[in-house]
Order: sequence, then structure tokens, then C-alpha cells
Amino acid sequence: MSLQLYYAPGACSFIPHVLLETTGTAFEPTMVKLHKGEQQSAEYKAINPRGQVPVLVHDGQVVTQILAIIGYLNDLFPEMGYLPREPLARAKVMETLAWMNNTVHPTFTHIFMPQKFTNNTAVHGDLRSHSTELYRGLMGELQALVQRAEAAGQPWLGGDKFGPLDAYTLTLTRWGSLAGINPEDYPALWAFVQRVATQPGVARVIERERLQLNLYKAG
Amino acid sequence: MSLQLYYAPGACSFIPHVLLETTGTAFEPTMVKLHKGEQQSAEYKAINPRGQVPVLVHDGQVVTQILAIIGYLNDLFPEMGYLPREPLARAKVMETLAWMNNTVHPTFTHIFMPQKFTNNTAVHGDLRSHSTELYRGLMGELQALVQRAEAAGQPWLGGDKFGPLDAYTLTLTRWGSLAGINPEDYPALWAFVQRVATQPGVARVIERERLQLNLYKAG
Repeated sequence: MSLQLYYAPGACSFIPHVLLETTGTAFEPTMVKLHKGEQQSAEYKAINPRGQVPVLVHDGQVVTQILAIIGYLNDLFPEMGYLPREPLARAKVMETLAWMNNTVHPTFTHIFMPQKFTNNTAVHGDLRSHSTELYRGLMGELQALVQRAEAAGQPWLGGDKFGPLDAYTLTLTRWGSLAGINPEDYPALWAFVQRVATQPGVARVIERERLQLNLYKAG
Repeated sequence: MSLQLYYAPGACSFIPHVLLETTGTAFEPTMVKLHKGEQQSAEYKAINPRGQVPVLVHDGQVVTQILAIIGYLNDLFPEMGYLPREPLARAKVMETLAWMNNTVHPTFTHIFMPQKFTNNTAVHGDLRSHSTELYRGLMGELQALVQRAEAAGQPWLGGDKFGPLDAYTLTLTRWGSLAGINPEDYPALWAFVQRVATQPGVARVIERERLQLNLYKAG
């Protein structure tokens, strides 16, 4: 079996990167330098015409999109229990993953890349500040998920097993810190993310991607 | 078994609405009047705190988010084959569903509800026109999906069985027409969507939601 993951440091490819690393299986992590535009090269677009990370290549077959890759890795490594087996429990995990993917991630995009939404640079500041306020609320929702899991005596957001919700929560909290939101304003969330970061598979990926967990700068 | 679906006419709740209707199972379709703000009522928020449609309630259990509901309905009605059973084929369907959900849908939101992204009404026109151009490109990608399925001799986008990709494509094309894009500019896509609309389950939901398929007005 050959497994290759195209990732960019700090991007949402962190989630499948962590899931693969946690399996202990050999795979080829392949860095795509977004700041050099490598995702727009003809070579990369032949693999993923949309020019995005992550891309998983399994025995020559390409799978893109976080949610699709998570489901595929769950099928490939059922012993990891990345998604619950019981339909309702799995649907509830997918519900939160979809929300992270279609709401939290795009809100960050408005802060990080407002040029995607208008060429009028005069309004980029408007888009940034509006979405930063929204992002604070979303970090509150992430913290509520952590608190609900803790109240239920669950070690991880999806239940007893470490999984995609935990890795995604780390990435989204880290992005919040990059957007100028102090993660210490969300103590339960921040404590959880720091615990996620100490998981061996997560720690190895953080080292490989050379990530700083908290990018917040006061003032 | 009790099944209830909260939907809003023309919203993305159309996709699970069609899937449920196509099963032939009895369920309770419950309309939420978004223009009257019913999704923000205390009663509705007790069901879905995010105040969105769709919501599926199955024997008292709540599932939100299109992608989660699709997976759940696939588990509940395996005989419908809404998602392929083979892992790679299922991942490829999920990949396109995720793209529709995290890219095409949010691009439409910028056209339909620019106020979600900035309170500065002076720039709403900018956001609308920028995203309308992007949406034209996305409709081109939808048409390419249709053409690829046709070239492969597949009757539906996910393979041999009618499923969520087909219903989603109808909704996204209809939204394009509402955004001022003539669906006839995409003849293969438009022919496909018209064929989807004649499927008995789809036709019944179009009637229940009182939808017009093409909202484009020339000039």
C-alpha cells in the first residue's frame, strides 16, 4: 500500500496529517509551499485541479476535501475508530465536522484572505473586522463543545477515541490566535488544545510542520 | 419510526427533502418560514441552536447539516444506495458534496446575503458582483461533472443510482438562476437539472415547496 499526503504547514491539511501519523503507518508527507504558489503549478493541478491542500493519494487514487479524506481514512484504518460506528453517533460527529468545514473555516478565510471576496482593497479591513467578531463567537462554540464533552466524561470530542474533531479544534483555535484572538480568553478550549498537542501523533506533525501553537501577539 | 424534516422552500434543505421523499417512507415535512424569522424563534432554536435548516428529527434525535443528514439517511435506507458502498467511490461522492457545501453554497451566500460579511452596505454590490463571477465558474465546474458522468455512461452523478449529488446540483443551478445567471448558458447542466426535476420524488418536493426551476430574468 502506498500512501501520500500533500499538505501545507498550518493549513487544514493538518487534520488528515495527524490522523495518518497517529495510525503509525508509513506514508509520504509531501509539503506544498503555498506562499510560493506551488499549489497553482501545472504539476500540482494535474493532481488536484482546484489547487488546494490536502490531497491524499492511495495506490494512485486521489481523494481531496477534508471530510472525504476523514471518511476514507476511517474505512482504511477501522481499528483507529476515527468515526463512531453507530449511525447516530457518527452523524453527530459529521455534523460538527461539516460545521467546522463550512462555517468556521470560511469565516477565517475572510480574515486571512479577504481578497478572495472582493478586489476592492479599501474594504478588506471591513471584511476582516466583521469576521473576526464572528470568529470570537465561533471560538465560544468550540469551547462549548469541549465543555459538553468534559461534562459527559468523554476524553475526546467524538467520544472515547482521539479523532478528527480534536485535530480540527486545534487548527481552528490556532487560526483564531493568528487572527488576533487570545486563546487564553477561552480557558477550557485552550487547555483542551494544549492537551491535544501533546498526543504523540499530533506532536510529531507539529514538529514536522514547524508550527507554533499560539500565534497571538498582545497589543 | 418517526421522521420529521424541517425545511425552507428553495433552501439547501431541498436535498434531504428529496432523499426522504424518494424513499417512499412516511415523514413529516415541516416548513420553516425564513422570511418571517421563524428559524430564530426560541422554539426552533431549542431544536437547532444555530437557527438553520435542514433539521432531521428521527425518533426524537436531532441531526443537522446536509452532509451529516445524507450519511444518516444512507444508513437508515441502505436499499436506496444514496452513497456508494465501496470506500473509494463513496469518498469521491463525499468529496464533491463537501465542495458543494463549503465552496458553491457559501459563494451564493455572498450574492444572496452580503450583509452576513459586512455591515457596510456600500460594499454589498462589490461582494455580489465578485461572487457572481466566481459562481459562473462554479456552474462551469458543475457542468463538467455532468459531462464526465455522461461520458462514463452514468445516468446520475454518483453512479447508477439517483442520489444527493443530483438533488444538490439542481438546487445550486436554481440558485445560479436567482443570482442572474442564465442556466441556458450551461446547456448540458441545464438539460441534466431538468431531467432531475422529472424524477417522481423530486417533482413532488418541487410541488410541495412551490419552486420555479428557472428564476433567471433576462436584462
